[in-house]
Amino acid sequence: MNFLEERIAKDGVVKAGNVLKVDSFLNHQMDIELLDEIGREFRRRFSGRPVTKVLTIESSGIGIAYPVAREFGVPLVFAKKSKSINIDGDVHVAEVASFTHGNVNKVIVSKKFLSPDDHVLIIDDFLANGCALRGLIYIVEDAGATVEGLGIAIEKGFQIGGSTMRELGYHLESLAIVDAMDEETGSITFREQE
Amino acid sequence: MNFLEERIAKDGVVKAGNVLKVDSFLNHQMDIELLDEIGREFRRRFSGRPVTKVLTIESSGIGIAYPVAREFGVPLVFAKKSKSINIDGDVHVAEVASFTHGNVNKVIVSKKFLSPDDHVLIIDDFLANGCALRGLIYIVEDAGATVEGLGIAIEKGFQIGGSTMRELGYHLESLAIVDAMDEETGSITFREQE
Repeated sequence: MNFLEERIAKDGVVKAGNVLKVDSFLNHQMDIELLDEIGREFRRRFSGRPVTKVLTIESSGIGIAYPVAREFGVPLVFAKKSKSINIDGDVHVAEVASFTHGNVNKVIVSKKFLSPDDHVLIIDDFLANGCALRGLIYIVEDAGATVEGLGIAIEKGFQIGGSTMRELGYHLESLAIVDAMDEETGSITFREQE
Repeated sequence: MNFLEERIAKDGVVKAGNVLKVDSFLNHQMDIELLDEIGREFRRRFSGRPVTKVLTIESSGIGIAYPVAREFGVPLVFAKKSKSINIDGDVHVAEVASFTHGNVNKVIVSKKFLSPDDHVLIIDDFLANGCALRGLIYIVEDAGATVEGLGIAIEKGFQIGGSTMRELGYHLESLAIVDAMDEETGSITFREQE
């Protein structure tokens, strides 16, 4: 097991409905040392990629994407989930269904922050059915920019997002792929990688 | 002018309704080097405070709070704006009005992540009328924990939040205090500090 799988095995909690709670270290309370290590690991896995921007989606993506942008020495852009009065009209928009909240959000990125010259590394905390990721890819391609890769902390390997992205040819790196969870025993089965 | 005031003067945009847009470096696109410097500056201003946790509110607070938590070597907890199915029922709740979005949100923090032993540094990007900050303070005090200080990137000095917090005796540090903005000329007047 790698460092993230070890932490998930130790502190992750399996809940009904294939929910994996990692809120004690990843997406409510955040362990900054762990996140910094995630940043270094994504830097290693996407080394050689000419990344100019890191893109994620609010809110829980920001804590994963911050150390990645830091490692690459590039700006971080986070997509916003609804139209705020503080956003200019000139935005890229994608529609994203939320598995967690059971609704559909508009996701927006100001056109000022993505250009055809950009090479974008997309980062998020979870990949399940891939709706959020597809929205972010749509926005990058709408801007005429290049998707250099997709970096995910935890992929739910039993949902279709990961296999879809790999079939489409994207360079997807998931630090932990959960192939099965057992609510009764709390056990988590990770896919062997490398 | 300090480093943040200089950046606001250079890249901030004054809009109608006393809106100051800093979305090119602080709360949509994020300049990680600037944010790391903000982290070091808060570390300096709150040195000697026995901080055990940094608390902020999603989403734009996270990028400011990350480098602060990193500097103090403590976990970051971010309050969430609505009840997600992924949050346990056992939460601290405060109601917060949003100046930006014109609505009222419930703000929640899981009781697991704040205890009476905690000494909390509260961080946010903006302070205007202080509603978000009051909600976070309420949650810390509801947990029986201690508020060690309030660290704000940009305070709108012409709104009541800052003066209220100082009158209440909190140790408030705002890196930039905007006393006036002129939409016509785009000029921004900062309060002299130190």
